[in-house]
Amino acid sequence: MAQTEQTTATSAPDLQTIRAAHERIRPQIHHTPVFTSESLDTMTGAHLFFKCENLQKTGSFKFRGATNAVFSLTDEEAKRGVVTVSSGNHGAALSLAARRRGIPAWIVMPGAAPRAKRQAVEAYGGRVTECEYDMASRDATCKTLQEKTGAILIHPYNNPRVIAGQGTAALELIEDVPDLDIVISPVSGGGLLSGTAISSKSLRPQIRVIGAEPKNADDAYRSLAAGQIEPAAKTQTIADGLRAVLCPLTFSILRQHVDEIALVTEEEILATMRLLWERLKLIVEPSGAVSAGIALHNKITARGKRIGIILSGGNLDLDQIPFVRAAK
Amino acid sequence: MAQTEQTTATSAPDLQTIRAAHERIRPQIHHTPVFTSESLDTMTGAHLFFKCENLQKTGSFKFRGATNAVFSLTDEEAKRGVVTVSSGNHGAALSLAARRRGIPAWIVMPGAAPRAKRQAVEAYGGRVTECEYDMASRDATCKTLQEKTGAILIHPYNNPRVIAGQGTAALELIEDVPDLDIVISPVSGGGLLSGTAISSKSLRPQIRVIGAEPKNADDAYRSLAAGQIEPAAKTQTIADGLRAVLCPLTFSILRQHVDEIALVTEEEILATMRLLWERLKLIVEPSGAVSAGIALHNKITARGKRIGIILSGGNLDLDQIPFVRAAK
Repeated sequence: MAQTEQTTATSAPDLQTIRAAHERIRPQIHHTPVFTSESLDTMTGAHLFFKCENLQKTGSFKFRGATNAVFSLTDEEAKRGVVTVSSGNHGAALSLAARRRGIPAWIVMPGAAPRAKRQAVEAYGGRVTECEYDMASRDATCKTLQEKTGAILIHPYNNPRVIAGQGTAALELIEDVPDLDIVISPVSGGGLLSGTAISSKSLRPQIRVIGAEPKNADDAYRSLAAGQIEPAAKTQTIADGLRAVLCPLTFSILRQHVDEIALVTEEEILATMRLLWERLKLIVEPSGAVSAGIALHNKITARGKRIGIILSGGNLDLDQIPFVRAAK
Repeated sequence: MAQTEQTTATSAPDLQTIRAAHERIRPQIHHTPVFTSESLDTMTGAHLFFKCENLQKTGSFKFRGATNAVFSLTDEEAKRGVVTVSSGNHGAALSLAARRRGIPAWIVMPGAAPRAKRQAVEAYGGRVTECEYDMASRDATCKTLQEKTGAILIHPYNNPRVIAGQGTAALELIEDVPDLDIVISPVSGGGLLSGTAISSKSLRPQIRVIGAEPKNADDAYRSLAAGQIEPAAKTQTIADGLRAVLCPLTFSILRQHVDEIALVTEEEILATMRLLWERLKLIVEPSGAVSAGIALHNKITARGKRIGIILSGGNLDLDQIPFVRAAK
């Protein structure tokens, strides 16, 4: 995807910026609850605090960043509308954020995206333009739309305002549960993990920040190990929200603030998702279960620790989950 | 099942009794949240307020009634322990309530009960005794246990203290959302609906109280129509928590306070459950989806109304849900 047309600084946001973002978006978002489970605590020997971004407006944390970006635009900028490329959650989030501001949102989406996610985008008023799955097609479609409409690109993560918005989830979590030892967030393009890391390390320097990634989409893990951005893995993952790769901005934030990237297998993601459904009574999408899987499948030393886990979203096509098939 | 060995009055609780129950159980229970959904409101033209008893301790409202009954016992009574017959939620609830009071709980359970429910009972410290599915076997097994242990029978609904506990869910709901036009609760043996009706009509006389029942288990519907308790239907329902029949106590409360029993088909129950999973991001068990199905499938005039819906529980064997199959 083309780099964002920046209308703001390109440097990493700091805690003050994230606090300002929180003030800006607070009237629009849910202050999501933190769930706990005695049985999952018993199972891990840890104290787990689940930040329920699956219960956020539009069903994922993406609404935080999109809302901050949209409501940061000047009136002059805003009336041009916004455009993005998204296979799902960011597109839905940007659509609703734009509708709340009364401006159009154009969403470029691969034709193969889950039905539920496309329907959500349209239900929130987003105008979907289909493209092929490959990067080149996405970029070209997006560029054409930008030129035709004059809309401002709101990149899903290569945008400090988006990152600042995503950082408000950890801000709320640490305000609600101040004495965490560890915080775990999934990583894809790195917007949520960047915001989480900045908030967490600023508020609580001794906290350990862990990024969670599917083993089948381990580009962030490889990138931090190699010291440069590595290409996406060629394998498939059920965690369809975690297939993006880092950009220079998020890469540099992660290098500075993230202690570790931990990996889970596809089987562990599915088992975790099922366990969260059964124990928390919460629908969590595969991408959302990746962070919990790190703690529940012993990828870190969890015992005795107080661990904040960001459940990033709850949007899914039930039919696409291997242990779910279509109602007869 | 044998009538309960009453250690309390056999008459219906009133609002004052329900308030006292709430004070008694408040330190033990969750004040469950009320969820709303813009998309479900748009779909129905109503304002729906979902009281999330699936997020109650032990995964269902049953913990309210069981806790009130157990914590109402004198020390002399309590040390004898408690016993009940339950295929699931009441058994789990009574087990945890008893453990919280430090006394034993014996749970008589048909051998065919869902695996997850039996495991839950055992995880909460309940001692499971299997019986056959028929009434006679249950009663005999329970009676033998009572004689052997001296334990006090806590009937799942033929017990005013249990009914008073169940009434605290509607009490919280109406305190949190005061201006409801309608409240809907599922009905099986009638404990939850009785408590809901007493709380609701006492706090807000103009409210309409509706019982929700599967068409395949319509004995409460037939009983209120006939003016006498009718036997269970011979058909099967996916809503396995709703197969009990009214007792004289709940029948008389329902006749006095309930405006209507509405019915949903098996297909409507499953479609509702799936919709709640997708839109509320909440796991609701089939029995819990029955009350929502009344509003979502136009069994009542919902448009323009403010409707409280009690989602009674979230415990299920995912494998037993037709649109879910075992993880491979």
